[in-house]
Amino acid sequence: MPYKERVKKFQKYLQDEKIDLFLIEEPINLLYFTGLHFSVGKLYIHEKGADLFIDGRYFQVAKEKSPFPVHLFHKEGDDSAFVLSFAGERKKHLGFDNAYMHVAAYEKWLSWTGKNFHVVGKNKPVANLRGCKEEMELTHIRKSADINWRAFLYISSLIEVGVTEEFLAWRYEVFCREHGASKVSFDPIIAFGENSALPHYQSGKNRLKKDSIVLIDIGCVVENYCSDMTRCIFFGKKDPLLEKIYKIVRNAQKKAMEAVRPGITNREIDRIAREEITKEGFGDQFVHGLGHGVGLEIHEFPSIKSTVDEVILQKGMVITIEPGIYIPGHGGIRYEDTIIVTENGSENLYPREAPLV
Amino acid sequence: MPYKERVKKFQKYLQDEKIDLFLIEEPINLLYFTGLHFSVGKLYIHEKGADLFIDGRYFQVAKEKSPFPVHLFHKEGDDSAFVLSFAGERKKHLGFDNAYMHVAAYEKWLSWTGKNFHVVGKNKPVANLRGCKEEMELTHIRKSADINWRAFLYISSLIEVGVTEEFLAWRYEVFCREHGASKVSFDPIIAFGENSALPHYQSGKNRLKKDSIVLIDIGCVVENYCSDMTRCIFFGKKDPLLEKIYKIVRNAQKKAMEAVRPGITNREIDRIAREEITKEGFGDQFVHGLGHGVGLEIHEFPSIKSTVDEVILQKGMVITIEPGIYIPGHGGIRYEDTIIVTENGSENLYPREAPLV
Repeated sequence: MPYKERVKKFQKYLQDEKIDLFLIEEPINLLYFTGLHFSVGKLYIHEKGADLFIDGRYFQVAKEKSPFPVHLFHKEGDDSAFVLSFAGERKKHLGFDNAYMHVAAYEKWLSWTGKNFHVVGKNKPVANLRGCKEEMELTHIRKSADINWRAFLYISSLIEVGVTEEFLAWRYEVFCREHGASKVSFDPIIAFGENSALPHYQSGKNRLKKDSIVLIDIGCVVENYCSDMTRCIFFGKKDPLLEKIYKIVRNAQKKAMEAVRPGITNREIDRIAREEITKEGFGDQFVHGLGHGVGLEIHEFPSIKSTVDEVILQKGMVITIEPGIYIPGHGGIRYEDTIIVTENGSENLYPREAPLV
Repeated sequence: MPYKERVKKFQKYLQDEKIDLFLIEEPINLLYFTGLHFSVGKLYIHEKGADLFIDGRYFQVAKEKSPFPVHLFHKEGDDSAFVLSFAGERKKHLGFDNAYMHVAAYEKWLSWTGKNFHVVGKNKPVANLRGCKEEMELTHIRKSADINWRAFLYISSLIEVGVTEEFLAWRYEVFCREHGASKVSFDPIIAFGENSALPHYQSGKNRLKKDSIVLIDIGCVVENYCSDMTRCIFFGKKDPLLEKIYKIVRNAQKKAMEAVRPGITNREIDRIAREEITKEGFGDQFVHGLGHGVGLEIHEFPSIKSTVDEVILQKGMVITIEPGIYIPGHGGIRYEDTIIVTENGSENLYPREAPLV
């Protein structure tokens, strides 16, 4: 089980940051450190290990399965005796995730911790750790991508005049669930014709007409790990503008993927794709970032975008590369692969283009 | 469309609280005020109306469908000129939801708003408004409950020796999706035998044996509104202890439901059920709150629990009443209805007990 190893790595981080005790509360981080799903809970990580505080709904499960000692958290403050046991003559450092704890909770928490500790906020301190995937995590991600691709082939086979976006979305989901995925990683985006111009479209009831573009952005979850991929299929005659855009997007996507390797930054990768698209005159129609990390969450660290903090890519990171060009009222093209950063470059989990319908 | 009316009610609240401009960010509140799904966005509500700031992924949809003026939010600070246009000689009051905004975002936001405004944190200021449902919302909730009940009858028909929890959970989901629900409102909890002792159990691969208890806690989503219900079915011979517990739980549940009317508090309702169960000697085995509000979220205001802030129930609130007793290693019973608080009492959306299998 990787949980103790992960806590060890986090303890190393705490040592470097001179933090004695750290509160983890975000459910996805609780899952990362314990392997268990809790909607609410508190994991305190410290020099000697970790302690989990959990309410009555989860207490029994936690007692049976948690890799760390479990304490009943019945009401606000039930963790205070434990936390205060760390307070010493020298004022110690107590850390929390300031990109998770909201202001009201912070004020309450600070009212009893602030007197006894130096309270230190850290912005998503687990993101880095989660960003570089272990072998077992990559195995789950590969399996998730494999089901995703096969489900894509399956729904491609259902494309015909009159089919609805919703129907394809639902059949996608059924395929995934019946072939080993626990659920979809986001509501499938199936967009026909001009709906493809809306990057975050919600699949609807409209029916496919001939000579339309079909945009398919899908992902599922295997052993808690997400997959993500987008393909566009020309159904019938190709619209010349969309065909032109397709080539530009795909070219930019390839250029960006080829540049990925340990050492390059998220911003540079975004810039490479954006320059290709801008050069062709469609820079203003590429209205979102180039990609994002994928793992326990469908969108996670690192964001591949030129407007965010710089991140140097490392081996084991899993990211999407998904440029798009959107012409309102007409249509849009996005092309998305998920890749693993390897020692010398990257491995594409979706090496194949869309089939011809 | 109810959106302008909702903003009007919120403006009234702002007037009472002497707040000039309020930032709404929580996606579920953005949905409540605009009818649109955004994973990220900023809605500023003020005396004259409301203004929506949204990024490129959603901009086109927002421009077409938002009931309020839309502005492109490309990067951090793109809303600052708008916000600062409200600053006047008299220092005005700028509000935010301190139970949503996290500490790191707050610090950034405060760095440019704090100089020009009195910044005021409010704890879930939209909860109250959302707590009392409009007729149209009740229509969606009733429809959601109706599909939920029918899906329950359907999966009851599939109960037989050897069936797995996962299979029932999946067939539940398929029924909902094929009969008008957009999705499930939470992962269905189907727990056989001693698994029923875990209140937040994840349905697994184990197979039903004869003479077992089957706990079914399910809900779906219709037009964004959730449903929620739990029933326990004795499959085969009844375990005497569980039969005894069933009667205690059901009796406590009825007593609590009978007490519901406008004017009573959430704490009192919880206390009524808890006293019944404690009287019978199982108080320590009732390890969670009595219930919760249901609406756009599966768990929302008001929480029906004696350990939280007091809330006086009002007409139009929709809440669950779900006491439970859990005997670790043996089994548990929970009985849950969702009810609407009416002028003189309540209306139960699930007036029927479980069928006999």
